[in-house]
This record gives sequence, structure tokens and C-alpha cells, in this order.
Amino acid sequence: MKVSMDETNNTITKRSSSQYWKSFYSFVDKVKRCPGLLRRTLWKVGKDDPRKVVHSLKVGLALTLVSLLYLMEPLYKGIGKNAVVAVMTVVVVMEFTVGGTLCKGLNRGFGTLLAGSLAFFIEYLADVPGQVFRAVFIGAAVFLLGAAATYVRFIPYIKKNYDYGVMIFLLTFNLITVSSYRVDNVLSMAKDRISTICIGSGLCLVMSLLVFPNWSGEDLHKSTISKLEGLANSIEVSVMEYFYDSEKQANEDDSSEDLIYKCYEAVLDSKSKDETLALQANWEPRYSRSCHRIPWQQYAKIGAALRHFSYTVVALHGCLQSEIQTPRSIRDLYKDSCIKLAQQVSKVLRVMANSIKKKHQFSLEKLSNNLNEALQDLDNALKSQPQLLLGSMKGQSRTPITPKTPKTPNFYMFDEETRISLSSIKSDCCSPVGSKSKEGQGHKKVLRPQLSKSKTMSMITSLEFSEALPFAAFTSLLVEMVAKLDHVMDKVEELGRMSHFREFIDDDENIVVTCERQKMNTTENDLPSYAE
Amino acid sequence: MKVSMDETNNTITKRSSSQYWKSFYSFVDKVKRCPGLLRRTLWKVGKDDPRKVVHSLKVGLALTLVSLLYLMEPLYKGIGKNAVVAVMTVVVVMEFTVGGTLCKGLNRGFGTLLAGSLAFFIEYLADVPGQVFRAVFIGAAVFLLGAAATYVRFIPYIKKNYDYGVMIFLLTFNLITVSSYRVDNVLSMAKDRISTICIGSGLCLVMSLLVFPNWSGEDLHKSTISKLEGLANSIEVSVMEYFYDSEKQANEDDSSEDLIYKCYEAVLDSKSKDETLALQANWEPRYSRSCHRIPWQQYAKIGAALRHFSYTVVALHGCLQSEIQTPRSIRDLYKDSCIKLAQQVSKVLRVMANSIKKKHQFSLEKLSNNLNEALQDLDNALKSQPQLLLGSMKGQSRTPITPKTPKTPNFYMFDEETRISLSSIKSDCCSPVGSKSKEGQGHKKVLRPQLSKSKTMSMITSLEFSEALPFAAFTSLLVEMVAKLDHVMDKVEELGRMSHFREFIDDDENIVVTCERQKMNTTENDLPSYAE
Repeated sequence: MKVSMDETNNTITKRSSSQYWKSFYSFVDKVKRCPGLLRRTLWKVGKDDPRKVVHSLKVGLALTLVSLLYLMEPLYKGIGKNAVVAVMTVVVVMEFTVGGTLCKGLNRGFGTLLAGSLAFFIEYLADVPGQVFRAVFIGAAVFLLGAAATYVRFIPYIKKNYDYGVMIFLLTFNLITVSSYRVDNVLSMAKDRISTICIGSGLCLVMSLLVFPNWSGEDLHKSTISKLEGLANSIEVSVMEYFYDSEKQANEDDSSEDLIYKCYEAVLDSKSKDETLALQANWEPRYSRSCHRIPWQQYAKIGAALRHFSYTVVALHGCLQSEIQTPRSIRDLYKDSCIKLAQQVSKVLRVMANSIKKKHQFSLEKLSNNLNEALQDLDNALKSQPQLLLGSMKGQSRTPITPKTPKTPNFYMFDEETRISLSSIKSDCCSPVGSKSKEGQGHKKVLRPQLSKSKTMSMITSLEFSEALPFAAFTSLLVEMVAKLDHVMDKVEELGRMSHFREFIDDDENIVVTCERQKMNTTENDLPSYAE
Repeated sequence: MKVSMDETNNTITKRSSSQYWKSFYSFVDKVKRCPGLLRRTLWKVGKDDPRKVVHSLKVGLALTLVSLLYLMEPLYKGIGKNAVVAVMTVVVVMEFTVGGTLCKGLNRGFGTLLAGSLAFFIEYLADVPGQVFRAVFIGAAVFLLGAAATYVRFIPYIKKNYDYGVMIFLLTFNLITVSSYRVDNVLSMAKDRISTICIGSGLCLVMSLLVFPNWSGEDLHKSTISKLEGLANSIEVSVMEYFYDSEKQANEDDSSEDLIYKCYEAVLDSKSKDETLALQANWEPRYSRSCHRIPWQQYAKIGAALRHFSYTVVALHGCLQSEIQTPRSIRDLYKDSCIKLAQQVSKVLRVMANSIKKKHQFSLEKLSNNLNEALQDLDNALKSQPQLLLGSMKGQSRTPITPKTPKTPNFYMFDEETRISLSSIKSDCCSPVGSKSKEGQGHKKVLRPQLSKSKTMSMITSLEFSEALPFAAFTSLLVEMVAKLDHVMDKVEELGRMSHFREFIDDDENIVVTCERQKMNTTENDLPSYAE
């Protein structure tokens, strides 16, 4: 018994030692691969957005310039030791975009000013004899202001806009109040601090505003356009794939799947990025042509409407991936109207993207009319073709049956020429269980019924309701999409009105935007075209 | 002409002056209402999450304590003027959760240490005669390190984990390098700085770890549970409303709509919050019962899977809101199986919530079986009842028709007892245009056909395909939901395995969680129950 236990222990020891070696080697391997990975990562960051390289150099330059305050004799004489505070300010305040820098710089400036004035007030109150009493008074003030400022930072509005300012307020207040206990000339200390912070912030502002500025507003503007175009692509590819590439789907045609996914994924996860950009853009001193403020918050609202729109796109994409599919023949019946509707939706998205890009309004009415027409087409197609026959299955057959023919003219108002009949769909009994049921996978192949448009005009073929489900869902989602699109259109139109876009020009709608290659963060370091 | 222009001008002046007065009054009104609004906001913040009040007091206390370093004579002698750096550190480092504080504190500590060592190295290199040469050398070092550190901050991995550390590194490096130009005893200065930063960070850590700690991990844990339960509620309410409350919907039954919306809205927008919490939780020194690290990133993965699941819930909710509805009678045919499936889905979500809450594993197999059973039920119901009859409309009627009756037994394998037939559905000709078509709004009312289960067994009634659409979409989305749920189940099971949850106990599944009243941020300031 003991021997076997020893053996077991031995084995365990051996195994664990060999495991240690293995993990050690894998660690060494990782370390070896590290430099290559780092190099690739560094390269990729710069390649994806060269503005980042420029920004890094800008920060380096700003730091060197602010260091001169300390390094050069004449400047040092004027400012003194506090020059390091300016260096600190540059490190902390300099952000990637103008809006970010302005927000931080102004917050820091006003926070310091406010804290300075309050601190002097407190010091004035605490200016009584008795060291102990003064210490207690200062301690109490620090406690109260500390708690209050921290609590105020929890208010959503403050947190969103002035979080950094309140923090700097607290910082400066404590610095001055506490120092005032031992330093006599607090006033000059505070003055020095405020002036150096102003110098630092000013330098940051000059560097971000004048040297290759990156505008948050422009980022937001471009990302909104690219989101609209991405969704348009996504919808078009989805619908095309649904009607044409269903055979391909079996061999995992990942490229188009990826395209669809990427396009809407960018929209789905855009909430926090949009809101930050809109917030920063609000700080930027930029105006539209007619000297009106650009309503950045409206861009954020468009983003929200687009996110809600994209949930439907996700669901539509889900229809493509579901394992059970409506027979090709059925889908073919509605192919044209579905594709037309999807193209209309895509077109509306592109027109809106173009409208925002070119800063002109678009004709809401015309677009709505086109959409309604496409919807009506689909509606007609749906009405004109199959019918759901609800009835008992007792003794009912799947072979062609001829219905009785009393006509009810008030019901059949649609075009009687569009009728198509199908003969003998040999449909498999697919279960709607989708990816859950294993036995369903055998029935995946798409059926090709013999279409005979002209001959069997009066034939009726039954189709299982469960087979019609996926296609019905697809169509229903397309229709749902139009309803959601309406909301997006409203928001974009509102944006046009708020930012005084040019009036609608008729030929604008014919511009079809090619956007496959478009990228958000490419080399666009030049001054923004619409800042005046 | 001139007079009329003058008049116009007068009118404009009058109007604009009255407008000014109006806007002035509204401004005064706003200012008057301001204190009340502020009071309500402050009260709400504290009421929603009393931990915030406690945290504010903690910060006040920490600041007072750190001020003592400066205010008390014996402590001041030991540390000196640099005590203000400790005050600054407390203001900057103290965060709401332990994870946040640890992340900032450790980043600040290590950043300072690293920068200090590098700065001394640079100073050693720059230790050559010649003030100008030294200044140039220092300037170059500041530029290079500044640009490099800023660039490194753009690497996503660094940005996520060590952004603050790199900033502090840059700050301290510049401070020491630049100061070294004029101050002789830089070493002691740096030592002082490092020690005061350590004191400040240490105090922050003690305060957040030991005095009413708020754990990011616990927040993440609770929010995951509440998201699961919220989705379960949302689905249940949606389905119930679809089958029972469609009449109510007309009179804008907002309360349940709001409930559904709120439940999934919290999930949709959770990405950035989840990721921040998971990141902070990774810094927290907390272990599960068996001394394993809790896999917080897995919680974030569950969050991602839940978000994808919730897109389907949104689409399902869309079915409720769409203006065209399938006649009640048709829906009633599948009511039981649909409700059963939805309840199974909700149950699975609740079981998972419970599993995470109680830290025991759940039986994936059993749940899957139940789900599959419910799916099979729905499948059977779908197969056993209506059929889509595809055929030409020529001379076809909407009145009951009797089909021919040759039986094809290999197709009708379902239970023949479940058949229901409908007589004469007086269906309106609703267009699927949804909210877009104005003429569709008149047809909103739900139809109640005369159900006669036993009598008209062999009657068949046709139903327009466009009318069946919404219900088909609803059903299809339910099925789609199960496929997505599968993914969530995988992730939760993985979490159970990774965090070594207790083994599955059979009676656990009967625990039904009541969660209507549950709130994320309520009074839970006591020490976490599962920290060891």
C-alpha cells in the first residue's frame, strides 16, 4: 500500500516537474516572441491612424517647450520653481482631440481659480490666534469640502461635464488650505500656481488648436457617416445573400458574413464613444457656415436611433444563419420585391450619409414615397401569392387540390396578372428547432420545385407553416426595419434643420456613395473643411 | 416705403425686446427653480445608492488624516513640505471601488518608481560639464520620452490597463529630470516624492479596503445576476402581453411596456460598464472558496453573450409594437406552446441567475432537454395546424373550401387529435406596411372569429400570408432566441467550471427567483459574503 502511494507521489512529482518545465519553456517562448509582437503592435497603431504619431510628437514638443521655462535663465527668473507645475499641467491636460484638451484645460483653470478664492476665504476665517484652533478649523474645512466635492462628483450631469474640474478644485483647495498653516505668503504661492497652470493649459490649447488639430466633432461627423454607409452595405449584402447565396452558405462563406457583422457591430458598440465625442465636440469652438453652433448632441441622438435600427439588422442577419430555411422556390416568389425594399432602405441610408457629408438637406417626402412604394410592392406580392389555409388535416392531402371558385371581388383588389402557382413542392419536414435539434441538420438542403408559371394556373400546393416561418420572419423584419428607419430619418432631418444645411437639390439623390473602402481614421490631418 | 420699413423695424425691435424679456423671465424662473432641483438631485443620488454617501465621508476622512501629516508638528518634522504631495495623491487616487483605487494606486506607485530610476539614469548620462549641453540633453530626453510614452498609451492593451501608470511615469520623469537641472540634491527630492506618494496611496488603499469596501467584482456579479433576471422578466411579460393584452395595447398600456424596455435596455448599454468593472475587479485581491482567482473576464463574456441574446428580445418586443397583428384566433392556436417555450427560456435564465448567485453549477443537460421539449411542442403545434396553400388566386375564394382527401401517411406523423379548424375568419385586409402606411391604422382592431372546434372539422379557411407574417416573425424570433440562449448557457457553464462552483444539486432548479423588486445598487455596504 505504502509503496503504491510512494509511486503515485513519484508520478505526480514527475508529472508536475515536467509540467513546470513545459510552462517554463512556453514562458521563454512567449518572451522571445514579445519584441516581434510589440513591434507589430506599435506599427499597427501608427498605420491605422497616423494622427496618433503626430499627436505623440506634438506632446513631446509641448513638453520640451514648457521645460524651457525651467531650463532657460531669463524665463526661470520670471516664473521660478513653480515652472514644474506647468510641466505637470501639460502632461495631464494634453489630450488627443481639441475638445478633450479644451475640456480638461478649462476645467483645470476654473477649478483652480474657484478653489483659490474659496481657500482664501477659509484662511480669512481661520485667521485667529491659537495654532490648535487653526489646525482644527483647517481639518474640518478639508473634511467638509472633501466630502461635499466627492458627493457632487456623483451627480450625473457634473460627472459628465465637470468631473475633472471638481477634482482639481478639491486638489487646489487642499493644497492651499493646508499649506496656509505653515507658509506665510500663501497668496504669492497661489498666484504662482495659478499663473503656471494657465501657462501650461495655454500651451496645450495652442498646440492642439493650431498644430494639426484633431477635432472630436469631425470624428463624430465621419463616424456617423460611416455608420450609415456601413448599415446600408450590411443590409444589401444580407438580402442578396439570403436570396442568392444560400447554397454557398453551407461551405461557410465567411467573408461576406464578416462584412455584415463588422458593419453593424461598429454601430452596436458605439454608445460610449459617441457620447464622449459629442461631449468633447461641445467644447470645440467651431461653427457652421451660417455661424450657428453645430448641434453635436443631435449626432449622438442619430447614433442612438441607428443603434435601435441596427438591432433589427442583427435579427435579419440571424435569419441568414438559422439552420432551417424556407424553400428557395417560395423565396424566389418575393425575391424582387424584397430586394427592392432592401435596396430602398439602403438607398435612404446612403442618401442620409451623403446629406450629412455634403451638408445639404434631403427630400424626406421623396424618400418616404419611394419607401412606401417598395413596401406596397411587397405587400401586393404577399397578397397576390400564397394563402395560409387553416383547416383540419383529416384526410387532407399535400398533392395539388383545386379550390372552389366563388369570387369575392371586394377582397381581390390586387393585380391579377402577378399570380404564380407552384406545382408539387417536395418539401422536407424541417423542424423549426433551428440549431438546437440535431436531427434537423439532415434536412438542410434547399428544395427546387418545378416552377410552371403558365401551365398550372389553378393548382394549389400546400406548404407547411413551419417552413414558411423563417421567410415570414425575414419579411416581417424588413418591414419592421422601415418603421425604425423612419425614426432615423426624423433625427437626420432634424439635424439638417438645426445645423442649417443647404436646401435640398434634386440631383443629389442620384449620388451613390461608394463606401466599401472608406475608413474612419485615415490620414485626415488637414484643417477641417467646414470650420470657419 | 420708408415709413413702412421703419414700421417693420419698429415691430421687429418691439418683438425682439419682448422676446428678450421673455427669455429673461424664463431665465429668472430657471434660476429660482435651481435650488429645488439641486436638492432633489442630491437627495436622489444618495437615495439610489447610499454607498455613495459613505464613500464621500470616507474621502473626507482620508483627506483630513493625510492633512495631519502637515498639520501635526511631529509628523511634519519627519516628512516636511512634501506632505502636500500625499494630499494630492489621496485626491487623485481614491476611487469608488477597491479595484479602481488599487488600479490607480499601484499604477501611480510603479509609474513613479520606474520614472525615478530612469530619471537618475538620464541624469547620470547628462552629468557632464557645460550648462548648455546639459540643457539640450535634458530637452532631448524630455521630447523623446514624452513622445514615446504618449505613443505607448495608444496601444489598446496599455490604454486599458496601465494608462494612468504611463501618465504618472511621464509626469514624474519630467519633474525629476527638469528639476535636476537646478536642484542639486535631486535624489532626496525624488525619495521624498516617492515616499509621500506611497503614504498617500497606502492610506487610500487602507481606507477603501478596510472601511466599508465597495468591490467592483461584487457589482459585476450582482449586475450579471440582475441582467439575467431582467431579461427573464422581459421575455415573460412580452409573451404574455402578446397573447393576452393585445386589446389593452390600444389604450397605451405604458407600465408593462416600460418594464420590458427597462429590463433589456440595461443589458444593451452595459458594454463599457461591464468591461470597466471586470478590469477593476481583476485588480482586487479576492478569491473563491477554493482559493482560485475568480474569472472576472468570464463575467464580461457572459455580458457580451447576453447582449447578443437581448437583440432578439428587442426584435421580439418590436413584434408587440407593430401595428399590424395576426388575428387573435390564429395566435390562440399556438398560445400554449409559445408561452411554454417562453417560460422555459425565462426559467433557464433564472436558473442561471440563481446558479451564479448561489455559486453552484446547474444541469446543462436537464435544461437543454426541457428547452428541446418545449421547442418540439411548438414544432408539433406548428406542423399540426395550418398549412400555407400556395396557389393561383384566379377564381379562388376566401370562403371555406373542402379539399380532396387522398392521404399521404408518411407526411402526417403528428398527433391527429390536436387539430383545430377555424370557420370564416372575417379578416381585414391589413397591409404589412406597419407604422408607415397611414391607411393601415384603421385596420388595427383584432378580429375574433367564431371558433367551432368540433363541428367544422373539415372546413378550411384561408388566411392572407401578410396577416400571418407578424405571428410567424414572433415564433421565429422565439426559436432564434433559444439558439442564442444556448451560447449564454455555454458561457455561464464555463464560468461555473472556471470558478469551481459547487456541484449541481437537484432541487436547486425549483427555486424561483423573485426579482421584480430587486435593485442593483441598494444598501449592501457590509463585507462581501464570498471574500475569504
